[in-house]
Amino acid sequence: MHNKLIGLFDSGVGGLTVLKALKNTLPNENYIYLGDTARLPYGTKSKETIIRYALQCTEKLMEYDLKILVVACNTVSSIALPYIKDKYPHIEVIGVVEPGAEAACNETKNNIIAVLATESTIKGKAYENAILKIKPTATVIGKACPLFVGMAEEGIIKGELAEAMAKHYLHEILLKTQKPDTIVLGCTHFPLLKEAIQHIVGNAIHLVDSAQTTAQKVQKLLKEKKLSLDVTLPHATMHFLTTDDVAKFKAIGEPFLGISLDKSNVELVDL
Amino acid sequence: MHNKLIGLFDSGVGGLTVLKALKNTLPNENYIYLGDTARLPYGTKSKETIIRYALQCTEKLMEYDLKILVVACNTVSSIALPYIKDKYPHIEVIGVVEPGAEAACNETKNNIIAVLATESTIKGKAYENAILKIKPTATVIGKACPLFVGMAEEGIIKGELAEAMAKHYLHEILLKTQKPDTIVLGCTHFPLLKEAIQHIVGNAIHLVDSAQTTAQKVQKLLKEKKLSLDVTLPHATMHFLTTDDVAKFKAIGEPFLGISLDKSNVELVDL
Repeated sequence: MHNKLIGLFDSGVGGLTVLKALKNTLPNENYIYLGDTARLPYGTKSKETIIRYALQCTEKLMEYDLKILVVACNTVSSIALPYIKDKYPHIEVIGVVEPGAEAACNETKNNIIAVLATESTIKGKAYENAILKIKPTATVIGKACPLFVGMAEEGIIKGELAEAMAKHYLHEILLKTQKPDTIVLGCTHFPLLKEAIQHIVGNAIHLVDSAQTTAQKVQKLLKEKKLSLDVTLPHATMHFLTTDDVAKFKAIGEPFLGISLDKSNVELVDL
Repeated sequence: MHNKLIGLFDSGVGGLTVLKALKNTLPNENYIYLGDTARLPYGTKSKETIIRYALQCTEKLMEYDLKILVVACNTVSSIALPYIKDKYPHIEVIGVVEPGAEAACNETKNNIIAVLATESTIKGKAYENAILKIKPTATVIGKACPLFVGMAEEGIIKGELAEAMAKHYLHEILLKTQKPDTIVLGCTHFPLLKEAIQHIVGNAIHLVDSAQTTAQKVQKLLKEKKLSLDVTLPHATMHFLTTDDVAKFKAIGEPFLGISLDKSNVELVDL
């Protein structure tokens, strides 16, 4: 059981930031990652479409021998998690929203938390619900920032234009007398724009991304469920599935994963 | 035959600018429009995926009684037109690239034409080929501007941020000693950003969009093939198919179509 794979999926390459954190925390595990790059972005799609696509991604990963499924996408975690758990009750499923909400609640002093995410994540109110479950007195301000996704993918992550876009999305929040002291980067793409966002909001506001806390939660769960590796294997593997061009997955994915990606480990699949 | 439908499809709502021009040119025809909004954008996807999706869209429209198929999407016109014609030889198929190339060739004085489009359209070199077929001595400069799509859909179409994005994409072209005098807006979304782009390039450069010339080409072809309406019907219709949320299609589509859209005419389909 312990030598089975950790499966992850995302609409695209953003979830590779979660894989990166996992790989740092659990370096000897074997990973399989699916990026549905042909149909990205999910964050602007309707709830029904996101659920349909999320179940197709899960079904594809279920062809592999998984011990845990990490939904490495905020949009899917917000919208489709109960549907995945319902359809696949025999497997442990973890999303990125709860760990992100926990991290924000630990961080905030003034109990005002802003969440930057895709349209669907904001509409679904999953972060708001998760935060209020931990801190019922918190004020949660949601803001959809859909263009951050394309900016991160195109590498427009700092400088004048990235900051102008951050200002466009954040100026309303910054005008409030009751400003948040903590902002959740509620999309796996957004940590790439951290510098530009921090520049606009100032250093007094803390930015939270959920990749690290998700990795810790996976580590804890594997231990609890006695699913951790019993021996350190000499060759821990990472395998990748993508629904669009393999070369493009490699090129765009590498900055998210933080290490170079072996093309022979990337496979084109149709969902 | 003449009372059959004119079918159009696009990855999303951008092609509604083509429908708008058609409706102005041929107000009495009956139209069916498919927007594959669940899977947009196409312009960042690989050639193989675009062909696959384009054939699925065509297949869906073939369930209707069409007299002509207008591929109202530059990306699909650039990449998948021969594949559609090959699979459906019994129907007239028109794309938007050739009419756009013709318009640019008629406009240019210095024979230097820039094409702004999605990644896939630029990579496919369809505009370059179409322009050089008409004007073999022309210089064609291609520039991918993928974020213009999201900007148009979010309504960020003028002002500081739209202009900053236009500058980001165009400053290299404007630094050239041999500047283009004509720029093709080679994506059906881009005409919405016309004002911001014009502001950055200056009034000496002419912007071309292919919606109007495509409509004229459809009109000519219908006449040639004797497919025009023989009588003016009292109730010309427009019907819409979308692969994602109907309400969203209406909300985002209306600025592109230029008139209000009756929700009861929009139908959700799965491809």
